[in-house]
Amino acid sequence: MVTFYRPEQMFLSGSKTLSREYYLSPEIFNIEQERIFTRQWFCAGHVSRVPEAGHYFVLDAYGESIIILRDQNGEMRAFYNVCRHRGTFMCEEPEGRFSKSIQCPYHAWTYSLDGRLIGAPLMKGVQDFNKEQFPLHAVRLQIWEGFIFLNLARSPEPFEQVFAPILDKFKGWNLPVLKSQRRIPYDVKANWKFIFQNYNECYHCPPVHPQLARISSYDSGENDLHEGSFIGGFMAIDGADSLTYSGRACSIPVADLPEEDLHRVYYYSIAPNMLLSLHPDYVMFHILWPQSPHQTIVHCEWLFHPEASGRPDFNPDDGIDFWDETNRQDWHMCELSQKGVASRSYRPSPYSPREALPAAFDRNYLEQMRD
Amino acid sequence: MVTFYRPEQMFLSGSKTLSREYYLSPEIFNIEQERIFTRQWFCAGHVSRVPEAGHYFVLDAYGESIIILRDQNGEMRAFYNVCRHRGTFMCEEPEGRFSKSIQCPYHAWTYSLDGRLIGAPLMKGVQDFNKEQFPLHAVRLQIWEGFIFLNLARSPEPFEQVFAPILDKFKGWNLPVLKSQRRIPYDVKANWKFIFQNYNECYHCPPVHPQLARISSYDSGENDLHEGSFIGGFMAIDGADSLTYSGRACSIPVADLPEEDLHRVYYYSIAPNMLLSLHPDYVMFHILWPQSPHQTIVHCEWLFHPEASGRPDFNPDDGIDFWDETNRQDWHMCELSQKGVASRSYRPSPYSPREALPAAFDRNYLEQMRD
Amino acid sequence: MVTFYRPEQMFLSGSKTLSREYYLSPEIFNIEQERIFTRQWFCAGHVSRVPEAGHYFVLDAYGESIIILRDQNGEMRAFYNVCRHRGTFMCEEPEGRFSKSIQCPYHAWTYSLDGRLIGAPLMKGVQDFNKEQFPLHAVRLQIWEGFIFLNLARSPEPFEQVFAPILDKFKGWNLPVLKSQRRIPYDVKANWKFIFQNYNECYHCPPVHPQLARISSYDSGENDLHEGSFIGGFMAIDGADSLTYSGRACSIPVADLPEEDLHRVYYYSIAPNMLLSLHPDYVMFHILWPQSPHQTIVHCEWLFHPEASGRPDFNPDDGIDFWDETNRQDWHMCELSQKGVASRSYRPSPYSPREALPAAFDRNYLEQMRD
Repeated sequence: MVTFYRPEQMFLSGSKTLSREYYLSPEIFNIEQERIFTRQWFCAGHVSRVPEAGHYFVLDAYGESIIILRDQNGEMRAFYNVCRHRGTFMCEEPEGRFSKSIQCPYHAWTYSLDGRLIGAPLMKGVQDFNKEQFPLHAVRLQIWEGFIFLNLARSPEPFEQVFAPILDKFKGWNLPVLKSQRRIPYDVKANWKFIFQNYNECYHCPPVHPQLARISSYDSGENDLHEGSFIGGFMAIDGADSLTYSGRACSIPVADLPEEDLHRVYYYSIAPNMLLSLHPDYVMFHILWPQSPHQTIVHCEWLFHPEASGRPDFNPDDGIDFWDETNRQDWHMCELSQKGVASRSYRPSPYSPREALPAAFDRNYLEQMRD
Repeated sequence: MVTFYRPEQMFLSGSKTLSREYYLSPEIFNIEQERIFTRQWFCAGHVSRVPEAGHYFVLDAYGESIIILRDQNGEMRAFYNVCRHRGTFMCEEPEGRFSKSIQCPYHAWTYSLDGRLIGAPLMKGVQDFNKEQFPLHAVRLQIWEGFIFLNLARSPEPFEQVFAPILDKFKGWNLPVLKSQRRIPYDVKANWKFIFQNYNECYHCPPVHPQLARISSYDSGENDLHEGSFIGGFMAIDGADSLTYSGRACSIPVADLPEEDLHRVYYYSIAPNMLLSLHPDYVMFHILWPQSPHQTIVHCEWLFHPEASGRPDFNPDDGIDFWDETNRQDWHMCELSQKGVASRSYRPSPYSPREALPAAFDRNYLEQMRD
Repeated sequence: MVTFYRPEQMFLSGSKTLSREYYLSPEIFNIEQERIFTRQWFCAGHVSRVPEAGHYFVLDAYGESIIILRDQNGEMRAFYNVCRHRGTFMCEEPEGRFSKSIQCPYHAWTYSLDGRLIGAPLMKGVQDFNKEQFPLHAVRLQIWEGFIFLNLARSPEPFEQVFAPILDKFKGWNLPVLKSQRRIPYDVKANWKFIFQNYNECYHCPPVHPQLARISSYDSGENDLHEGSFIGGFMAIDGADSLTYSGRACSIPVADLPEEDLHRVYYYSIAPNMLLSLHPDYVMFHILWPQSPHQTIVHCEWLFHPEASGRPDFNPDDGIDFWDETNRQDWHMCELSQKGVASRSYRPSPYSPREALPAAFDRNYLEQMRD
């Protein structure tokens, strides 16, 4: 398909939907990689994946393979999955536990879990070769509320500065100690921005999610973050304890929450790749991995109170399955949007008042794309 | 593969085959989209697919999804399959029947069958929003001899003007009232132009189609349209009633034909995407959907007299299967041609006198490609 | 993925690994086609594939399909698999035997086995048409030590001049009369240069090939060709008769070899696509067919003494299976290298003294890429 990318349109903002190039153009996708994904702090997962020293998982992020591990001292670290000798990819398993070191399978170069090169056979004859100069390339890492954030830039903006608007916002939710119960990967044939726009409005809930609309009305809530990289608010739960098929809570509350939070779901977009949804009895988060203008891998994960497991009232599937169905309904709409904007007849159209957050997402996105 | 596209070669015509770039180059394929397929009237099918009000089918044409329907007043209409709100793809079923309206599944915007926006929930607060300004985008449509023709251009050349050379040529054939008996899609791994060239000569019939050559000799006919967008002529049927496996007619004649037409097949190319083959007892037509320089989807459909069905002498498979085999033999040759011209050693070569129509096709094609 | 191809880096040589663009960039891959693969003599196989007049095989090489045959006079010839009439691909079978001619399936043009057009039906009316002017396009062919070499250039450098350094080097090995016992194709998801680099060092043998390292130590040999298009040397076999699973010879010696050669394996890279490995009891050769920066098809073939077959001590699988496993271990390392250098974090690093030949390969490669 011929795309008609006109740079002068790129930074028009307003209350209309984005023009079609933003969803189709490989050039714009490349600019997004450069100006957004390899420049900003992005969520890589929750610390409960690597509870003990030596535990690791391998993350595919924006064309990079990254080893995320807990080192011998219990410290979280992230390294590019690339040997410093011949550039070989080292870890093939998606997760596991290192004994005390990482060894490249090709020529047996060996690294400690804090990244130092500690073994390099047959390199003695190489002039000026010094093991200290060949540690694994590290990726910047920051833990926030139990979530692992990474940054691929050389000189990233300080995390605390970027996250200032929400740094302490979720203090009461026990996020650092929650335990993951399930992680579902979805292969969505749609641009990642459709997924953010979809998450940020419930205008579509009555036609698309009848099971959700019944217990949480699209007009029941209020937004408290309206502009910028972090946007969202709450919606009320009415006639049910939580968002589950049964309508009953599927676990003990995730924390000692104030009464009003027991009847609400909080939904926040955390640019550039995280959606955080706080329910009374579980926390759901999505992380998005754009693969091309037309494809996004989404990982959705559900966290519960660390003491919930094993209790008779612990029924996590009641909430997980509810959202798994809801997720799939959303992805389907995103995929129809992707197909639709591929038409030469598509023109940007006005957003409704119920779509104020998608419009805010678009504004912030265009702002980030400005070099 | 590296292609060597030299624009100065582009408009060389004559009696030699086209240079290889025309079959391989994505750039030339894009120019074809721009100068031919999105500019000219193309065939979308036969009206017998949508006999009654509300009936529709969805056509994939040149990167667009188009809803073709018969509205409440029985009028044929065509719309881009794109909601005017967020650009969502609306119809997912390839064909069906609308009750009275088309509803977008995402936010429930609703359109009448003549394309007006009649429902747009929650848009009241939008300043200056006016439903009259958001009808479905229409595609220009013209019915000719029962065939639906569309045009994606803003200001298309008038149909009657373009089709003047053949406007009344097929008046005697009952085409508007014939009924479709079968439609077979083929996925051909070859450039669309090879399919036109192949259709326009029977030099290949003895080696490729022994079952056809036996009853319709390559040198038995005569062309009556020699140049331009419409070319073709007839071939004689000898020692058989029609082109069927049994050699017998497989249906009553499609119309009250003059005696000589009962022993002929008429073959016409109708640029840019239709092949029309009129037999005494059935009409076959192909429509071509180029997907890339290397791939063409072909739909072949067979039409019969509306009163043939149910009669004891109605044996449509006898003709359909005969051509299904013949089609596959042709596609195979087109695919071998596609593979062959990919060689750097390929050079344009002289056409034989038996290939006058392929040469005329090439000339007209190059003329259309001239901006 | 965005590649950052900086031409000024292109010709830096030295003792560091190549920069990542050489393994990733489609532009560099195209330059390789132009400056290396369609310019140099490359190996197409061994003459034992076409023992008698009429025997042929079809080779896919650098985007071309080439018919390699033995003509009526027993002479080896190579032709592009493209009919001179409409450019049709003629031979679809990967190998077989022609009776006396090659016939195009489309319009039945017919060629003798030495390439002359001997039949062209219905071309009589074409002005100035002369069958002598339309022979099959020939590909330059040279037999060296029983191996078929081809060249796609218009004016290739003379074979004897290019191959001067090794023209008579293998005289004692009976190569022209050996018989092929097996040919295994591998689909390797790695750049072809990784395969050459891997072949040219045994630093990786202890970690990657324990079964090989046990009987042929990485430091047991010596190189005798150190620079240029032909590099290599020998490694000792110790505690076994040959490289087989049993450790015993799997066939009679390929030739009347001097005593010391009965305890050695000779490994030579023959640019741009051949690896030649001479064992006492069999000769193995690989030919490489780069498909993209990320994919290489490798054909590995094993040759034995013509009188070995049928003897009780002939156990070819003992050596073939040994190398099939070893090959797969190597391809896996090449694939991990391909994945690793895709990282933006990869930087060229120093080669060890044990990697002198990979460094020489890189230098010669960069030299060839200089226009």
